[in-house]
Amino acid sequence: MANPVLPSSGALSPLGLDAVRLSPGFWGDRVALNREVTIAHCQEWMEREGWIGNFRGERPRRGREFSDSEIYKLLEAMAWADHPELPALAETVARAQEGDGYLNTRWSGSRYTDLEWGHELYCYGHLIQAGVARLRTHGPDQLTEVAMRAADHVCRRFMDDARTCGHPEIEMALVELYRATGAERHLEMARRFVERRGLPALGEIHLGRAYFQDDLPVRRAPVLRGHAVRALYLACGAVDVAVETGDEELLKAVEAQWERTVARRTHLTGGMGSRHADEAFGDDYELPPDRAYAETCAGVASVMLSHRLLLATGDARYADLAERTLYNVVAASVALDGRSFFYANPLAVRVPAEPRTGVAGHAAGGGLRSPWFDVSCCPNNIARTLASLAAYVATGSGGDVQIHQYTPGEIRQGELALRVETGYPWSGGVRVRVLTGGSGRISLRVPTWATGATLRYGAPATGGDGDFGGRGGSEAARDGGFSRGSDSEAGRLVEPGYVVVERDWRAGEEVWLELPMAARWTYPDRRIDALRGCAAVERGPLVYCAESVGDEPPLAELAVVPAPPAERPSAGTVELEVEGVAGSPDSDAWPYGSEPDDAPYRWPAGGGGTAVRLIPYHRWGNRGPATMRVWLPVADQADAVHPAPEPADVTTGRAAGDAHGTSPGSRSFS
Amino acid sequence: MANPVLPSSGALSPLGLDAVRLSPGFWGDRVALNREVTIAHCQEWMEREGWIGNFRGERPRRGREFSDSEIYKLLEAMAWADHPELPALAETVARAQEGDGYLNTRWSGSRYTDLEWGHELYCYGHLIQAGVARLRTHGPDQLTEVAMRAADHVCRRFMDDARTCGHPEIEMALVELYRATGAERHLEMARRFVERRGLPALGEIHLGRAYFQDDLPVRRAPVLRGHAVRALYLACGAVDVAVETGDEELLKAVEAQWERTVARRTHLTGGMGSRHADEAFGDDYELPPDRAYAETCAGVASVMLSHRLLLATGDARYADLAERTLYNVVAASVALDGRSFFYANPLAVRVPAEPRTGVAGHAAGGGLRSPWFDVSCCPNNIARTLASLAAYVATGSGGDVQIHQYTPGEIRQGELALRVETGYPWSGGVRVRVLTGGSGRISLRVPTWATGATLRYGAPATGGDGDFGGRGGSEAARDGGFSRGSDSEAGRLVEPGYVVVERDWRAGEEVWLELPMAARWTYPDRRIDALRGCAAVERGPLVYCAESVGDEPPLAELAVVPAPPAERPSAGTVELEVEGVAGSPDSDAWPYGSEPDDAPYRWPAGGGGTAVRLIPYHRWGNRGPATMRVWLPVADQADAVHPAPEPADVTTGRAAGDAHGTSPGSRSFS
Repeated sequence: MANPVLPSSGALSPLGLDAVRLSPGFWGDRVALNREVTIAHCQEWMEREGWIGNFRGERPRRGREFSDSEIYKLLEAMAWADHPELPALAETVARAQEGDGYLNTRWSGSRYTDLEWGHELYCYGHLIQAGVARLRTHGPDQLTEVAMRAADHVCRRFMDDARTCGHPEIEMALVELYRATGAERHLEMARRFVERRGLPALGEIHLGRAYFQDDLPVRRAPVLRGHAVRALYLACGAVDVAVETGDEELLKAVEAQWERTVARRTHLTGGMGSRHADEAFGDDYELPPDRAYAETCAGVASVMLSHRLLLATGDARYADLAERTLYNVVAASVALDGRSFFYANPLAVRVPAEPRTGVAGHAAGGGLRSPWFDVSCCPNNIARTLASLAAYVATGSGGDVQIHQYTPGEIRQGELALRVETGYPWSGGVRVRVLTGGSGRISLRVPTWATGATLRYGAPATGGDGDFGGRGGSEAARDGGFSRGSDSEAGRLVEPGYVVVERDWRAGEEVWLELPMAARWTYPDRRIDALRGCAAVERGPLVYCAESVGDEPPLAELAVVPAPPAERPSAGTVELEVEGVAGSPDSDAWPYGSEPDDAPYRWPAGGGGTAVRLIPYHRWGNRGPATMRVWLPVADQADAVHPAPEPADVTTGRAAGDAHGTSPGSRSFS
Repeated sequence: MANPVLPSSGALSPLGLDAVRLSPGFWGDRVALNREVTIAHCQEWMEREGWIGNFRGERPRRGREFSDSEIYKLLEAMAWADHPELPALAETVARAQEGDGYLNTRWSGSRYTDLEWGHELYCYGHLIQAGVARLRTHGPDQLTEVAMRAADHVCRRFMDDARTCGHPEIEMALVELYRATGAERHLEMARRFVERRGLPALGEIHLGRAYFQDDLPVRRAPVLRGHAVRALYLACGAVDVAVETGDEELLKAVEAQWERTVARRTHLTGGMGSRHADEAFGDDYELPPDRAYAETCAGVASVMLSHRLLLATGDARYADLAERTLYNVVAASVALDGRSFFYANPLAVRVPAEPRTGVAGHAAGGGLRSPWFDVSCCPNNIARTLASLAAYVATGSGGDVQIHQYTPGEIRQGELALRVETGYPWSGGVRVRVLTGGSGRISLRVPTWATGATLRYGAPATGGDGDFGGRGGSEAARDGGFSRGSDSEAGRLVEPGYVVVERDWRAGEEVWLELPMAARWTYPDRRIDALRGCAAVERGPLVYCAESVGDEPPLAELAVVPAPPAERPSAGTVELEVEGVAGSPDSDAWPYGSEPDDAPYRWPAGGGGTAVRLIPYHRWGNRGPATMRVWLPVADQADAVHPAPEPADVTTGRAAGDAHGTSPGSRSFS
């Protein structure tokens, strides 16, 4: 079966990428653009930069010590996308492999002399993931042989060594290779890499051992820490090892780390990592919007981790975070044309980029993505993630299908064939149409924010949607932790989590999920110092932001009144408008004073006059150099501590208050 | 005359260090500790680390590429302190100098091949400053010869080159050497280094040209930017060049840069630099308390710049910032025992350091200073600053003396000899007693925060202080921008700036300045996102903070009610107590929600119950691993937007409101 992650056990079973076919829509469009544009873009840049030439022995060697890994990430993307350039690129790589399986264009003469920073095992990890992707989409060939020789070399060399690699990655790769081939040594090698970390297994570095998670054994660590991508890749490998070895303690440890990380070290976008200096998480509640690092690769890695935990546990919160991160980090990092990228994904930018002249730059920021980077993990990571995006959409086994992410497409599992039709994330209706019937359960995820969601199902009636409501109620089953809907005339109210419908499905029947899409104000936990006095707007799974380009009103002197946002449909998307208050710039003076009620120590009191346009965060930075804010100061502090009036739910036509009544304890979406 | 900065013109004239003798007191104690402990501490560490051995040709060479400069900073400290170890250390340095004047233990075989990062000219700068210090305190000797040979080598090599050094420093050193020797070539070389910067004069680096101020010519830059120490050293050199060449435009440019930097890029402590990644200023209003870098050396450099601008213009605001920075960065960076140091001086620390076992570490943080660093500019910079601290206390020429910083000591200028007696910064009374009389003006700085300050002068009467009020009124002169006091029974009220008293002074006469020392709440400009909803407490020139050590109540769940702080005198210092509200920790959950009036989205409303002890910021981290906060969340947002009730002025016994009435437009100190 073709899927990047195929555990031998767990609550949910992945489907093959061929069993989930995406149609045009939010994700289908991006997957197609990735295959048609981004993959070739990456290959061209790596030829131009000489990173591919390194494999041909061209000298002087070019690129950073880990540049080989970029070619491997691209090979993985090519494998999932069945890209025609793969065999030739794999041939180039294969020629650089040494007789005993060693393969690295930088360290050949001085193998494993700098495991802390050398990235040799990290590079193998990506090579092995590419090999697994090729094996599962195509079958054995030159690339899979190269990957297997490298994996066996690693097992021979490191099985009885006490060390590991400064950058985790090989752990999950070796487990996946074991899953693909059944060779126990690969699992055992992965297990040992996970277990020896933190004993410690590496030398001292000036950034401290927590930087590469060598400060504590994985199973004893309370939270993800240090370099965000390293921490998340390691956690992925630990979950994989735990699942394959039945190590419940290790799995629980990573679940607890995820929980605390999400509660204290995650930005509203799902972005992870607050520090530029060491690309690290930072302390609990250290979540600055302007200096958020939120590296694109950390977003990719977070989706990988949440997906693994979802498969292992079936808990909807993992799919919730994956959705948040896919829409607000992964989709945000790449330009609408698929040819430039953000490396960091901050939630506020105060200074627009200098307009670029001449050749493309290697630095992104201030609203300008870059076509390439000196360290170019992000573009290639985006390429392999979008090439395998269907893996995150649905799972299934036997007669059951669980749909986690809503985007147009078709899903086949067992006897069932389903078509998903939706304008999500712009509109909240999701129609699942049965193409080929069968007996089984269809589960749909209701996101945590979707209080007031409704479900209907049955055969479409000519008489109108009302006919759906009365049917099938007795067939709705409660299954494991999945929640059951309650009856309602216009459809049954369903609570966040998974709603399950069990039935003998006939072709032509449908399930309708209606998710409430009213924009909502969101406030930060008081412990997050950097966000105090601010609010943000979300709508469905999307985080919104204010953007200022060129002569548009500046954001530095802007505050907002948290009244219900108005919708402004725009070119197939939904923009929003909120009420703002513009402060007047003050002359430069010492910015600390004794009078909090006087400018410049607070925003002008009273109502607005300024309309503030908000766009989906993932679309920012597509109009040139810009400033941007997700979190907006609340104009009148007295307003900020009282809830905003309840808005009408513009999507379903129902007052949001109805939903409040049926879901005590859940958060409202006002 | 012995002083680090001796301009040939300007509004104010420095005094020799021998003309300002500090007695026991806040600064006098620290200067003595520096001479007796810190200088030897630095020398011992540099022997142990091999940095001094590099000059003896010991191999392999040890330390960073710029470690030579640390020995030079220490030599400068030794020169100002007339330290007995100087000749032997200078002899070691001298032996490493090459025949043509070149001197660098790292780059000898590959001179000037990496000006961007090599620091060769930077090292010369510190060598030359040490040489000037020796020349002015002792006269020509081996150290001054080495420095002059190096300076002449630089002039020969770089006069007609288009390049400069990646780290500014040599500019001000060469100007000072010119001031000491009159050799025009040194001034011209400094001028060219300043002028060629930004044309550009250096190659591209991955951090961008703004990092080392090569993005714009100095006279065209609107604000200090990039690496903070580099930016501040360059600005010092530019002021020096401007003053010596009569370049009014260049001086005005640096004044404007200082003004915008102080208004938008300076922490409450006076600390400069917000970014760890490149030790840089960051954008306007990017002032995170937790990630404030506020490098000790940037504090030293800021004092150097403000002092130069004070000498050039006589504007009290420069002395104000120097005072703020001396008390809250320079004094904070060194432990009370003079043997360990902070490199960064953040305004909040969430996680205490791990207690250290065994040998001393090279990393400071979490309430633990470090005895040394791999890059150890800060301890040596502290040593040379404290060794020359008297330079910042007073200026004078002819019969006039201006006192800028209040600390016990004696000042001699012309016929006048004065003794300053004060408990400042703990108490607000400053008595200037005339030891030897003469005709002239005595000017005293009234800090910007000191609204309500009063002045009396004359001969002390046995009948009490009231006698001072009626005398000498007609002799108070208005001079330049200096403000004149207005009459008052208990002393005349004087406004912030300089108050000037002109008189034929007789021995035994006194000037009494009474500065109001009530603790005051301070609020941040609304544009500083990272401080929104918070307040801090200041008292006199001191910034206060809450500190938590060991089992003391944690700070993460604490907010404050901005009512007048109570004073708690403690072991010769003054601690404060304010009312706090302790939030209860919430279980871990997604930290963004829709209900701002529910925990965990705001602090509990209503009054306190928790007493929060505040200590002077410069004393934090002397009790072991700790967490700390300068900016404290305000418990009830509704309170934060109304001024706190006016406190009684506990120092003078006068209601603070009196002062408000006489100073419309100035900030209150409630």
